[in-house]
Amino acid sequence: MTTELGTDADAMLDFAAKVLAAQPFSVFVGARMVEFGSGSATLGLDMADHHRQQHGYLHGGMIGYLADNALTFAGGSVLGPNVLTAGMTLDYLRPVTGPQVLAIAEVIDHTERMAVCRCRIVSVGAAGERTDCAHAQGTIRAAGRAQSSEQ
Amino acid sequence: MTTELGTDADAMLDFAAKVLAAQPFSVFVGARMVEFGSGSATLGLDMADHHRQQHGYLHGGMIGYLADNALTFAGGSVLGPNVLTAGMTLDYLRPVTGPQVLAIAEVIDHTERMAVCRCRIVSVGAAGERTDCAHAQGTIRAAGRAQSSEQ
Amino acid sequence: MTTELGTDADAMLDFAAKVLAAQPFSVFVGARMVEFGSGSATLGLDMADHHRQQHGYLHGGMIGYLADNALTFAGGSVLGPNVLTAGMTLDYLRPVTGPQVLAIAEVIDHTERMAVCRCRIVSVGAAGERTDCAHAQGTIRAAGRAQSSEQ
Amino acid sequence: MTTELGTDADAMLDFAAKVLAAQPFSVFVGARMVEFGSGSATLGLDMADHHRQQHGYLHGGMIGYLADNALTFAGGSVLGPNVLTAGMTLDYLRPVTGPQVLAIAEVIDHTERMAVCRCRIVSVGAAGERTDCAHAQGTIRAAGRAQSSEQ
Repeated sequence: MTTELGTDADAMLDFAAKVLAAQPFSVFVGARMVEFGSGSATLGLDMADHHRQQHGYLHGGMIGYLADNALTFAGGSVLGPNVLTAGMTLDYLRPVTGPQVLAIAEVIDHTERMAVCRCRIVSVGAAGERTDCAHAQGTIRAAGRAQSSEQ
Repeated sequence: MTTELGTDADAMLDFAAKVLAAQPFSVFVGARMVEFGSGSATLGLDMADHHRQQHGYLHGGMIGYLADNALTFAGGSVLGPNVLTAGMTLDYLRPVTGPQVLAIAEVIDHTERMAVCRCRIVSVGAAGERTDCAHAQGTIRAAGRAQSSEQ
Repeated sequence: MTTELGTDADAMLDFAAKVLAAQPFSVFVGARMVEFGSGSATLGLDMADHHRQQHGYLHGGMIGYLADNALTFAGGSVLGPNVLTAGMTLDYLRPVTGPQVLAIAEVIDHTERMAVCRCRIVSVGAAGERTDCAHAQGTIRAAGRAQSSEQ
Repeated sequence: MTTELGTDADAMLDFAAKVLAAQPFSVFVGARMVEFGSGSATLGLDMADHHRQQHGYLHGGMIGYLADNALTFAGGSVLGPNVLTAGMTLDYLRPVTGPQVLAIAEVIDHTERMAVCRCRIVSVGAAGERTDCAHAQGTIRAAGRAQSSEQ
């Protein structure tokens, strides 16, 4: 039923938003959960002065944060909430000018214990126009006993 | 002369610290320039609650910020101040517990226009003990006219 | 006109096949150009014993070759024939059993001088069933005078 | 004792050379094990025409093979012989002209189940002069039951 599907989707987004709210650093930088589903996750950010580098663009480190976190949430959507980001690659193509930013991540393949995810960092202009600015690929692992001493 | 070399090293560190201070995001998260030389750069951070993820470790996004920025400073130390980070790979091995963190970057190879750099993310315990927690490799490019529209 | 478009597509594939045939290593391993268009390139391989590692799967190094080359052809399809692969990341998820292998690459974003491309390494079974086995992301640059001393 | 240490080192190199000889693709391309120790591995190649791309340099795919394999051997030297390469990043800086090539890999950090390794691809000229040409970072995992369905 549409209503129940809607309720499920809302519940998933609500769950992910609560996990994000439990990350002090995510609260500190002001990220919000825009979308969360089975195999996808999107984080949003309203760019403020304290997110910028010396030329006024979004700091590359904020791009790194957004990519890392969106990739991890996307991986967690298929592997379960107890996951670790094993690694991430990030290729920067254009500066992010904002004033809004989206980190749109999706699972492109996964086994039971490992997911390969991709993430686009998208600058959203004042009129809503979107420009892809950076592209990430990451691997997310289910955290088990054997890996308990690893991140 | 030792005195003048000391003065030069101090001047380089002072210059890099001023660039870091001109990055609003770096000021916002509280990073500081610990070392900056020809082919190397180290950023430091005193971990506070607002740098953490939900399990109390340093947020992976902060690791991404530290790696991105230390790699870029290291590349800039041999290519000049006008550089762009083209890409970065980050492999996470252990959680960062702190209470201090260092991002120790060095140039491992470079041409006139491109540098390949590496960075270790090091957790420094209360007694000063050091543990490597993540390892990054990045490519930094000199920004020229042809790339003016890219980040 | 459909006929002319068909002719153009054939001409593009023919051009790419000739470039591949001019690469002695590609001839040596037996790769063939399966598809080449504006923003995409697919290489194919019939797995033989000399492509394998010690457990009978496709050697990871052959996966590296296929990803590197498919990414470069895809980038060249939008940047022109004179391109350099700047970097590549490869995440392995499953062994490639074959007996056929495809490396399916596409441009996901590009400026005038740089393209970010992705590539799936697909194992094709005897009955034609396809399994994604590895995923790559790479950056391809247009080779210009300034980079003439670089690869 | 020097003699016994020498014997052990010889035995390790002999063991690694046998594993390499059991990889049909490594035999096909003509790679040889130059050094293998606790935390390091070096592969060597005498460049022949069939290793080249269309401009006469070593094909990027051969660089990918050498990096992948040297990283895996280095990881295996600390994790045991049953390992999987989880991922690899490769940054190309200069063309490899040879006539000899070395892939020099080392473990830079590891837990019980995962190793982060680096590899330099070195072109060795006729007079023995060495030029670093590409730099890789990879993660190697111990293969266990849980990962038995993954590569």
